[in-house]
Amino acid sequence: MHRTKAEILTIGDEILYGHILDTNSQWISAELDNIGIKVIRKTTIGDRREEILSAFSDAEQRADVVLITGGLGPTNDDLTKPCLAEYFDCKIRIHDEALKEVTEFFASKGRELTEVNRQQAALPECCTMLSNKIGTAPGMWFERKGKVFVSMPGIPKEMQLLMSNEVIPRLRSFFSTDIIHHRIVKTIGIGESWLADMIREWEAELPEYISLAYLPSLGQVKLRLTAVGENVKHLKTEVDEKIEELKPLIGKYIYGYDTDQIETVVGSMLLKRKKTLAIAESCTGGYLSHLITSVAGSSEYYQGTVIPYHNDHKVELLGVRESTLLENGAVSEQTVIEMSNRVREVFNTDIGVATSGVAGPGGGTPEKPVGTVWIAYADGTTTTTKKLQLWKDREINIKASAIAVLNMIRISLSKSIEIKN
Amino acid sequence: MHRTKAEILTIGDEILYGHILDTNSQWISAELDNIGIKVIRKTTIGDRREEILSAFSDAEQRADVVLITGGLGPTNDDLTKPCLAEYFDCKIRIHDEALKEVTEFFASKGRELTEVNRQQAALPECCTMLSNKIGTAPGMWFERKGKVFVSMPGIPKEMQLLMSNEVIPRLRSFFSTDIIHHRIVKTIGIGESWLADMIREWEAELPEYISLAYLPSLGQVKLRLTAVGENVKHLKTEVDEKIEELKPLIGKYIYGYDTDQIETVVGSMLLKRKKTLAIAESCTGGYLSHLITSVAGSSEYYQGTVIPYHNDHKVELLGVRESTLLENGAVSEQTVIEMSNRVREVFNTDIGVATSGVAGPGGGTPEKPVGTVWIAYADGTTTTTKKLQLWKDREINIKASAIAVLNMIRISLSKSIEIKN
Repeated sequence: MHRTKAEILTIGDEILYGHILDTNSQWISAELDNIGIKVIRKTTIGDRREEILSAFSDAEQRADVVLITGGLGPTNDDLTKPCLAEYFDCKIRIHDEALKEVTEFFASKGRELTEVNRQQAALPECCTMLSNKIGTAPGMWFERKGKVFVSMPGIPKEMQLLMSNEVIPRLRSFFSTDIIHHRIVKTIGIGESWLADMIREWEAELPEYISLAYLPSLGQVKLRLTAVGENVKHLKTEVDEKIEELKPLIGKYIYGYDTDQIETVVGSMLLKRKKTLAIAESCTGGYLSHLITSVAGSSEYYQGTVIPYHNDHKVELLGVRESTLLENGAVSEQTVIEMSNRVREVFNTDIGVATSGVAGPGGGTPEKPVGTVWIAYADGTTTTTKKLQLWKDREINIKASAIAVLNMIRISLSKSIEIKN
Repeated sequence: MHRTKAEILTIGDEILYGHILDTNSQWISAELDNIGIKVIRKTTIGDRREEILSAFSDAEQRADVVLITGGLGPTNDDLTKPCLAEYFDCKIRIHDEALKEVTEFFASKGRELTEVNRQQAALPECCTMLSNKIGTAPGMWFERKGKVFVSMPGIPKEMQLLMSNEVIPRLRSFFSTDIIHHRIVKTIGIGESWLADMIREWEAELPEYISLAYLPSLGQVKLRLTAVGENVKHLKTEVDEKIEELKPLIGKYIYGYDTDQIETVVGSMLLKRKKTLAIAESCTGGYLSHLITSVAGSSEYYQGTVIPYHNDHKVELLGVRESTLLENGAVSEQTVIEMSNRVREVFNTDIGVATSGVAGPGGGTPEKPVGTVWIAYADGTTTTTKKLQLWKDREINIKASAIAVLNMIRISLSKSIEIKN
């Protein structure tokens, strides 16, 4: 069984010297894995001609496809394009289609096309241009003796769009690969080791051609099932059956599958149930609202937010009672109960949620140390609260609290359906 | 002028396949950079003997020192140790000091030392053991013909402690290295190619031992100056002088240096000027508030936010006039002028900022296509507005708009000082 082999080449002093973190090569690896192409090596080199050329040659010997990111900027320190032209022995000249795209790009921004920008449209003659819809440096596709080189910009968004729209479809048709079928089961609100305990027997009984990986992230664990074989229909059926077997074991922690995001799932639940949402956030400082509004179409169910960072505004804007704050403090169950109920009224929504906590690094006390967070959900009938005891890190506390509220909305909306059924 | 050259080798299928993100090699690069060792290549390979051995041999030819992480676990798929023993042609046997440490490690955790754990203390005879104070796999140091190989565990905490305590001091004494001095100039609100045009002559006159790199990100471009030489004081002076020369050329776009972040710089400006801030965000949906509140201590100057996602709430909560919305629409200069001024009053702050736009993907019209965003800054005396014409991508539009508001606050606060001077 031959598997197409790939190498990923990252070009740029800024990554070599550790000034920026390379997240591209992880993303590319995962995408290639999805279409059955095996990454055998990742290499990062600097902006120097000899090293770039020798890396091209080494990679071509080992791999079927070489994916290159970086070094495509308009400035003199960017050498990927001239090196590719030299390696494939062809000239660089203005590419009509690329010039048209870069001209339109600048026109759409109401900006003049400078000579430096114009040079972004100069490409090696022997490559196929891959259109970059959101930037100025086009991708390039080279073929020689059954092997492929692809060059893409280093800016993650541009690279990802190019990969999805242009590179992945071309690689699929150029190489004939084994069939790999992945499905991801997404869980929330339970740790990796507890999850592993709950599905130990199920995991032990997986057939040899289905493998399982645990992919943990903040407050969530993804379970990835990977099936390898020849019959795609059979693989899909088998994996779906295994996922069905998971539901009685860990069903209440599963919020979605594959590309589902918790904020998108919560949004769909609100939309389906025709429920509207308002948010009162204190310690999460806008991050919860950002997650909700990052979903296209969220204006259908989301009405608005008040962030009363100071206690005065909790009273004046939201109508939390002064006595509640005085007796219990801002970080308390009673305060988030009032915040969630009052914000429903302010925005006239079905549901109100609230956060109040000590994000850190300062502000902790012995009774309420850094990482103490109260969250609440109110729907006019009942109010649900939860106390979180999180970490010492401000960013993690903000993000984990917001995720916990999304999970609270999910659980509450699931229950309301159960009761109706 | 000889600079010691290093290669970083990451061993492990989990990184190759994109299941986990490699943060070690960035950290190691930055540490080596600090002691004047130049990383010339980073390579990631999987857990396969032939690939590991060939990567050792390739790296030894190019570099003076090879730093290896990963593949030191107690399970059979971890091959780094046997490969190192094979490569340096020596036997693996229990190392007394390592056995003592691993025994104590397990005793301190109240756990029994199993045979698998005991094998963690077996090391190639030809290496120097590097003590791992917080884990079970010791580091290993090999020397041959003036070159050095170092093997470390892949767990970031363990690797970092080993590097700091053992590897960096040994590398410093083994190699006599050049001095490298970096500074980063951070700009905002101008594209890479315009910046390059403005500093072309300055760049052309940089001495040979100072190099320049452009590092672009959303709405920002970092300029990194790297000086290499023997006299650290001289290098620092030279670089600082070159930066001074930049100021007349692009000073108004420079917001900070080195580790400065725009949200932190804006926070410090507000704090220093004793100004308080309130936010009315519509299209940015909480992201602007999140940036502001991600800074520890932001409660000193930030009072709160209203996100009136629907027009009703713009009127009811903020007091924007209905006629303004009817005549101009929500995405208009007049609306953000009222939002920014009214939110100042609601939160009783010195400064109010506002955003309203079409983030996309839906909601665009011929007059106001997706990516049309109005932002405003009001300080009670004057109101400044700006229209942005951004992209088609919702996430990019949200983030770029928030960054543009931070820059607007920065510019306005800088001006208010200029006038006073």
